[in-house]
Amino acid sequence: MNMTVRVAVAGASGYAGGEVLRLLASHPDVEIGALTAHSNAGQRLGAIQPHLRALAARELVATTAENLAGHDVVVLALPHGASGEIAAQLDESVLAIDLGADHRLVSADDWTAFYGSDHAGTWPYGMPELLLTGHDGALTKQREQLAGVRRIAVPGCNVTAVTLGLQPGVAAGVVDPVDVVAVLANGYSGAGKSLKPHLLASEGLGSAQAYAVGGTHRHIPEIRQNLRAAGAAAVSISFTPTLVPMSRGILATTTARLSSAHAEASDAEVRRAWEQAYAGEPFVQLLPEGQWPTTAMTLGANTALVQVAVDRAVGRVVTVTAIDNLVKGTAGAAVQSMNIALGLDQTRGLTTEGVAP
Amino acid sequence: MNMTVRVAVAGASGYAGGEVLRLLASHPDVEIGALTAHSNAGQRLGAIQPHLRALAARELVATTAENLAGHDVVVLALPHGASGEIAAQLDESVLAIDLGADHRLVSADDWTAFYGSDHAGTWPYGMPELLLTGHDGALTKQREQLAGVRRIAVPGCNVTAVTLGLQPGVAAGVVDPVDVVAVLANGYSGAGKSLKPHLLASEGLGSAQAYAVGGTHRHIPEIRQNLRAAGAAAVSISFTPTLVPMSRGILATTTARLSSAHAEASDAEVRRAWEQAYAGEPFVQLLPEGQWPTTAMTLGANTALVQVAVDRAVGRVVTVTAIDNLVKGTAGAAVQSMNIALGLDQTRGLTTEGVAP
Amino acid sequence: MNMTVRVAVAGASGYAGGEVLRLLASHPDVEIGALTAHSNAGQRLGAIQPHLRALAARELVATTAENLAGHDVVVLALPHGASGEIAAQLDESVLAIDLGADHRLVSADDWTAFYGSDHAGTWPYGMPELLLTGHDGALTKQREQLAGVRRIAVPGCNVTAVTLGLQPGVAAGVVDPVDVVAVLANGYSGAGKSLKPHLLASEGLGSAQAYAVGGTHRHIPEIRQNLRAAGAAAVSISFTPTLVPMSRGILATTTARLSSAHAEASDAEVRRAWEQAYAGEPFVQLLPEGQWPTTAMTLGANTALVQVAVDRAVGRVVTVTAIDNLVKGTAGAAVQSMNIALGLDQTRGLTTEGVAP
Amino acid sequence: MNMTVRVAVAGASGYAGGEVLRLLASHPDVEIGALTAHSNAGQRLGAIQPHLRALAARELVATTAENLAGHDVVVLALPHGASGEIAAQLDESVLAIDLGADHRLVSADDWTAFYGSDHAGTWPYGMPELLLTGHDGALTKQREQLAGVRRIAVPGCNVTAVTLGLQPGVAAGVVDPVDVVAVLANGYSGAGKSLKPHLLASEGLGSAQAYAVGGTHRHIPEIRQNLRAAGAAAVSISFTPTLVPMSRGILATTTARLSSAHAEASDAEVRRAWEQAYAGEPFVQLLPEGQWPTTAMTLGANTALVQVAVDRAVGRVVTVTAIDNLVKGTAGAAVQSMNIALGLDQTRGLTTEGVAP
Repeated sequence: MNMTVRVAVAGASGYAGGEVLRLLASHPDVEIGALTAHSNAGQRLGAIQPHLRALAARELVATTAENLAGHDVVVLALPHGASGEIAAQLDESVLAIDLGADHRLVSADDWTAFYGSDHAGTWPYGMPELLLTGHDGALTKQREQLAGVRRIAVPGCNVTAVTLGLQPGVAAGVVDPVDVVAVLANGYSGAGKSLKPHLLASEGLGSAQAYAVGGTHRHIPEIRQNLRAAGAAAVSISFTPTLVPMSRGILATTTARLSSAHAEASDAEVRRAWEQAYAGEPFVQLLPEGQWPTTAMTLGANTALVQVAVDRAVGRVVTVTAIDNLVKGTAGAAVQSMNIALGLDQTRGLTTEGVAP
Repeated sequence: MNMTVRVAVAGASGYAGGEVLRLLASHPDVEIGALTAHSNAGQRLGAIQPHLRALAARELVATTAENLAGHDVVVLALPHGASGEIAAQLDESVLAIDLGADHRLVSADDWTAFYGSDHAGTWPYGMPELLLTGHDGALTKQREQLAGVRRIAVPGCNVTAVTLGLQPGVAAGVVDPVDVVAVLANGYSGAGKSLKPHLLASEGLGSAQAYAVGGTHRHIPEIRQNLRAAGAAAVSISFTPTLVPMSRGILATTTARLSSAHAEASDAEVRRAWEQAYAGEPFVQLLPEGQWPTTAMTLGANTALVQVAVDRAVGRVVTVTAIDNLVKGTAGAAVQSMNIALGLDQTRGLTTEGVAP
Repeated sequence: MNMTVRVAVAGASGYAGGEVLRLLASHPDVEIGALTAHSNAGQRLGAIQPHLRALAARELVATTAENLAGHDVVVLALPHGASGEIAAQLDESVLAIDLGADHRLVSADDWTAFYGSDHAGTWPYGMPELLLTGHDGALTKQREQLAGVRRIAVPGCNVTAVTLGLQPGVAAGVVDPVDVVAVLANGYSGAGKSLKPHLLASEGLGSAQAYAVGGTHRHIPEIRQNLRAAGAAAVSISFTPTLVPMSRGILATTTARLSSAHAEASDAEVRRAWEQAYAGEPFVQLLPEGQWPTTAMTLGANTALVQVAVDRAVGRVVTVTAIDNLVKGTAGAAVQSMNIALGLDQTRGLTTEGVAP
Repeated sequence: MNMTVRVAVAGASGYAGGEVLRLLASHPDVEIGALTAHSNAGQRLGAIQPHLRALAARELVATTAENLAGHDVVVLALPHGASGEIAAQLDESVLAIDLGADHRLVSADDWTAFYGSDHAGTWPYGMPELLLTGHDGALTKQREQLAGVRRIAVPGCNVTAVTLGLQPGVAAGVVDPVDVVAVLANGYSGAGKSLKPHLLASEGLGSAQAYAVGGTHRHIPEIRQNLRAAGAAAVSISFTPTLVPMSRGILATTTARLSSAHAEASDAEVRRAWEQAYAGEPFVQLLPEGQWPTTAMTLGANTALVQVAVDRAVGRVVTVTAIDNLVKGTAGAAVQSMNIALGLDQTRGLTTEGVAP
C-alpha cells in the first residue's frame, strides 16, 4: 500500500505533542498538517521545540476545530480534561487519537473519583499488546480491536509499564492480581512542562523523590481496568511513582504473589507466561534470562523491555519493565495504534533501537 | 567531658573509609590516627580522596595489626569478608567498628546462605534507633545496648532505610511483617569504587536499572533480623534495589499490609506508631503530614526522613524513607554508635542539615 | 574569645539564604535570630527548606527593618536590587552582609550599564583572598580590609571562581590581563529558584546549554574590577557560563596569554605565582601538579581548588578552578568574611572537606 | 536508485560501533553483514549492546580480514592505532570507513607527536561540511572530495564541534585563526567503555572535571589541520575539554578575535559568514538570532547547531556549537560520508530531529 496520511497535532508545544511530531517527521506514510497550540499560537515551532529541525519553520495556529479540519488523523496532545470538547467537534471519519486521559477509562465513576470532573466517554484503547481474556477464557489482544477504528485513547505512561510487566502472569493465572505492588522510577519529562518548584533542575539533580503516594495517583484505575481485561476478577494494586534524575524513562518494578494454583510451578513454567504473551511482538520483549532492563536501552524507541524472576522465599513474582515514557508510554503507542487503525504495518515510523548509552 | 579519642581507619581509600574520615575530620573529640590501605599504601591520602583537604598530606600505610595498634577506636572499612581476620588481632579494649557486613548477622546460616563463607561472628549492632520488643512486650531501643561496647557492626545502608521506614508499624503491630515489599532508588556510591561496566557514568547517566532482583540481595537477612527484633514473629520481604542517576542517596519505598487487628485504625492511629517511635530522635524524623522526603534533604547529613500513608483501597501502609547511604547508611551510623559506646553525646561530629539543593 | 553572635537572615527561603542558614546552624559562635521572607512569611522554615532540620520549626516573618533589628549581624539574601532599601534602614553598628550584587561594584557606571538601575553604593568586598597590588607594587590581601567593618558585599559566584583562578598570574605579571577567556560549567542552583522553562529538570537533565553569551553577563564588570585590584592596568575578558546537569558547582576554565616579560619563564616559575598567592590559605588551594579539580571535591565546603598549566604551543596559561557556588561562591564567603569582620578565626563554622563522591 | 549496500562493522561492541549499528539498522539501503569484536567474539550482540533489539540475536565474530571480506562497506570502530593493520588487508574496492584517529591527520609528524606511533597514512576526511579555501581563494566543501572514494577517515568528535563552530569565520577572514580558545562540555560516552575510576558514575554524577588541559589533547592537530584547510595561514588554539554529567553531547564554546580587517564589521556582517557557510546544509544549522543550542536538541540526531555572537568589549567572536558526539561526532558523520561516497542522498538513514527533552 502506498498512501499518505495527513496528520494534525493539537497541543504541539508540549512534550507529548513534540514527541509525536518527532516520530511523525520520519514516518514514511505521513504528511504533517496543522500544528496547534494555546498560548504559543503564532510562534514558529522552532522557537518552542528547537530539537525538531525539520519542522522549525512551521507556524503554530490556534487549537480550533477549523484548524484541525481536513486531516486524516488528529492527534490531541492536550491537558487532561481539554480533549473532550475539541474531540466532539471532529468529523466522525477522522481518526482522532487522544494522548490525554479523557477517554481511557471505561468507568465514569473511576473517572470522577480520580479526576473530579464529568467523564468524556470511552474510546478504543491504544495498547495493541494488551491481553484480553474473553468470557470463554480465550486470549486475544487489543490489537484486534483497533483495526479500522476512528477514535483511540492512548494509555498512560505508567500504566503501560505496569500493565506490560504484570499482565502475562495475570492472564495465565500464575500470579494473584490482588495485593500487587508497583514502584516506579520516573524521568521528569513525565511531569510535563509545568513550572513547579519541585520540577526544577536544581531540585531534581542528585535527588530522588516520591509523589502521589498512598493510592492517589490517577493512573491506578487504568491499571486495574487493564488487569481486569487480562482476566483478573478483582485487582488491588499499591502504586508509587518516584522521580529520579533523568529526563526520560520509566523503570517499573512490580511484585505479585504466585497464585495458589501455581505455587509449585517451576521458574521456567512461570517464565513461560511472559514468553507466550510476547512471542512475536516487535515492541514488547522479554529479555533473556539474567539480563535486566535499563531505561537507556529504550530511549527514543518504542520498545518495552521486560524481565521476570520468582522470589521463592516470599512467594512473589517480580517483574521489571523499562520504557521511554514519551515513546512506548505516549507518542510511540499513538503512532503504533494509528498504524493499526489505518491498516498500515504497525512498525511504520517506529524504531526498536534505543539511543544508548 | 573533655577527651580526645584517637581513631584509626583501615580501608581509607574506599568510599566508606573516605566518608568516615570526612565526618571524623570535624569531630571535636577525635584525633585521626593511622590511615591504612591495601594497594594504595604508600600514597598520600590527597591523591586518593582529594576532597579531604585537611588530611591531604597524610600517608596511607599498610593494613596491619601493627599499624592499627595504639588507637582508642579502629574503624574497619574493608571489603566484605576481610574484616574478620584483622579484627581478631585487635586488642579487646579497642573499640572496633566494622563498616562491612561480616559481623552484622546473628545467624551463621544466614551468613553462609547469602555470603557463601564462614561466619566471623556477631557484634553489637550499630543502629541506635532500632526498636527492640522484649519477651514481655516492653519496647526499648538498640541504643541502650551500645553503651560501653567495644565491638560495633554498622548496618547495611539499604537495611537502614528499610528498617527505619517499617519498624514502627511492626513494633506497634499496625502492619503485618509478612508479605512486605520494598523497592529502593539507590545512588551509585553504594556500589563502591569497583570498576564494572554497568557502573560507568556513560551507562548510568540518564538511565535507571534494577539489580539483585528476586530475593538475592545480601541485605535481606539483615532486614528480617531487624524486623524480628522489633517484634515480628515471622518476616517475609520482597526487596528490589534500583540504581538511579545520583551519586548518593537511598529513597526506600515500603508497603506492608495493615494488620487485621488494626484494619479499622484511623490514619492518625497508624501514624502514631511512627510518631512515638521517633519522638525525640535527633537523626530519624517523621516529616509533617503531606511532606515527602527527598534524598537531597539528607545529603551529607546523618538524617533519616520518613513519611507514612495509608492506602485504604488496598489495605496497605506505604512508607518512604530517605537517607544518605554513606552517612546515616554507613559512616554517620558508625560515628553515632561510636559516640554512644564511648559515652559521648550521640550527635557529636554529626549534622542533621542536608546539603541541598 | 567566647562570644555568641546573633544573626538574622533576610530572604531565608531562597537558595542563598538557605545555604547561609545551613552553615550558621553549625557555627559554634552563632545564634540564629530572625528569619525573614517575602511571599513565604508566616510559614515554617521546614516547609520551604526541609533539609534544614534543626530550624524546621522556625517561623518566617516579613522582611522589615523591625524584624531585622536587635541582631549583631544581618545577612541579606535578597534579589538583586532589593537590598539597598532595607540596608539603609539598618543601624550602622550592625554588621550587614549582602549576598546580592547591589554593593559589589565600585563604579556606578558599571552598575547602571549591567543592571540598569541606580547604584546603591559600594561596600567592603567579601573576598578575603583577593590580591591587592598597591600603587607602590606592594601586595596585600583583601582580608586586611575586612577587620572590623560593618558592611560586606559578598562576591558573585562566577566572579569568585574566575578571580581565584586568574589573579595570581595577573598580580605577578605572569599573564596579560587582556584578552583573557573564561568558560564555566555551572550547576543549576546558581540560577536560583525562579520558575523558568529552561531551568526545569526535564530540560536540564542530560543536556548542556550556554547562556549570557557575548559579554552580557552581569558578573563581567566585577571580574574586571578584581583583576584591576590585583594589579592589571586594563582588563578584557570574554566570559561564557554554561549550564550543565548538576545542582551545585562551578568549574571555571580560564586562559590568559603569558606576558611578554615572562614568555620564557619555566613552568615552575609560572606555577610559583599561584603557590605564593595561596600559601597558607585555608580555603583556596593549589592542587599538586598533575591533579585537576572537580566540583565534587568542593561540594558543601568553603574550598576553592585551583590548578594551572602552561600551553607553550599557544603561549597561554590555563587555569581550572572548582568551587561550590553556594558555599565559597556565596554563603561560605559570607561566613568567612563575617568571621574576619568580627575578629573570629576565619574558619569558624566552615569546612574544607567536600561531600564526595 | 535502488541498491542494497552490505556493511560490516569491526569493533561492534564499543560505543562507536554500537552507534553506527543503531543508525545502519534503520538505513533503508543497508544490509548489516559481519559484526566483529575482540574479546567479545562468540557472544550475541544482545548481550553487549542490549539497546539494539533488531540485532540482538547476531553473533559477534573475530576481527579478521576473512570475516570482513565480501562486504561493500567495512566500518572500523577500533581503538586508536588498531585500524591500520586490518585496513591494509581490505580489498581496494571496498569502502573502508575508519571511526578511529589513525587516518585523519595529513602530517605524519603531528601523528607521531600526539599519538607516539608510526603514521598509518591519510584517508579522505569524512566531514562533508568542511570548508576548503583553494589557492585561488575559491571556496568549496569537503563533500566534493568524497564522491566515489573508497577510504574515509571520520573526524574526531571534539574536532567536529570546534571546526563547525569556527570555520565560517576563518574562511571568511572575519576572525583571526590565531589565539583561538575552545572550552567544551563533554558527555562521558566520549571516553568510551574503558574502566577507569574517574569515569565511574559515582564520580561523574553531580560533578564537572577538566582533563587533557594545557595543549595535550590529541584532537588539537586535527583542529589546526581543518582551520588551515578553511583558509588559515597559521592556527593556534587553546583547547580544554571538561567532563560534565551527561552521557552524550558536546557543547563547544569557542572565541576568536575579530580580524583587523573586520574590526568594524557589523554584527550582521559577521553573522553572514556563518549564514553563507551553512545555507542549505541539512545537518549543520545556524540557529535564529538569540536562540542558543543545547546538546539535548541534537541527541541521537546528525545535527550540529551553531550560534554566534560578537563581544565588542573584548573584540572577540563567540560561537557555541552542540552535537551528539556519537552521531554527528562519530557514527552519523560516517554514515553521511558513506552515503556521499556511494552516491546516495547524504541524508539516507539519518535524522535531524533530536530526542528531547
